[in-house]
Amino acid sequence: MFVLGVDPGVSRCGYGCISSGTGDARVGGELSVVAMGVIATPPSDELPARLAALDVELRRLLAELRPDAVAVERLFFQANARTAMSVGQASGLVLAAASGAGARVVQYTPNEVKQAVAGFGAATKEQMQRMVQAQLKLADRPKPADVADALAIALCHLATAPLAARIRAASDLRVAR
Amino acid sequence: MFVLGVDPGVSRCGYGCISSGTGDARVGGELSVVAMGVIATPPSDELPARLAALDVELRRLLAELRPDAVAVERLFFQANARTAMSVGQASGLVLAAASGAGARVVQYTPNEVKQAVAGFGAATKEQMQRMVQAQLKLADRPKPADVADALAIALCHLATAPLAARIRAASDLRVAR
Repeated sequence: MFVLGVDPGVSRCGYGCISSGTGDARVGGELSVVAMGVIATPPSDELPARLAALDVELRRLLAELRPDAVAVERLFFQANARTAMSVGQASGLVLAAASGAGARVVQYTPNEVKQAVAGFGAATKEQMQRMVQAQLKLADRPKPADVADALAIALCHLATAPLAARIRAASDLRVAR
Repeated sequence: MFVLGVDPGVSRCGYGCISSGTGDARVGGELSVVAMGVIATPPSDELPARLAALDVELRRLLAELRPDAVAVERLFFQANARTAMSVGQASGLVLAAASGAGARVVQYTPNEVKQAVAGFGAATKEQMQRMVQAQLKLADRPKPADVADALAIALCHLATAPLAARIRAASDLRVAR
């Protein structure tokens, strides 16, 4: 199973794709990084052109990797209005392109990601990066931060999706009865 | 010249396309509505699927109408966090799709739209709808509100674009000298 984690942004959109044998990071599935990087758009271009360029690159990435699931950070109201709006616009592109490509699309809050990857919701950026490095057996800490965040979101999905799937299955069973 | 105005939203995305002979609404260009309507997505679907459906419909509309310009409301920080985020996500799709389709994409603040269409920035919704109806010689007030807003944004572009183009041309001239 391929899980693509995405940390949306217009200036820099981080991504990290993890392959898992079993789909469950906690029961011994071998995890490996298939791809990671950042899609950047030039600040000198106007916003619509930057969003269009990001959209093209996202769709190219989805077509190339064909992830089973795409995990994206769930956005909340932020202090900086300009940033919140452009992050929202970028996340709209990610969610639409991923869903259009047939992937299962799941959003996680920053706290859910920290809880799943580091074991507690108050983990620092550095602690998170070390946990991502350890879980993926990387030689170095993943850089830049956007890539580390994207890999963490993908790891969060791999850690929580099997339980969520079992809950859905149990719920379907109850509905069917 | 075809100008497509868009009032972005996930539940309801209003659009209105206006054809103008000269491109300048104030110097006698005959204005007519080429298309208007609302793209709606079912609240029962998950957000990624709704955004993907909106994206498909937007691209279909752009391919059909081939507008020279797409005018979109410029977003600001809003009181309601959930609405602000989903409007931001929808606007991201509109800006990317319009730019990708080769249209000139321009954003206007609500105040700029009111100023250009009704003559003053504090115009009420009803006043705006009457001005849109009068300028486009419509038999009835355009409904629903999303469509009226979209037509108003397109009218704003038609009213202000010629001056903006002359300023750009004068500026280019100065640079060239």
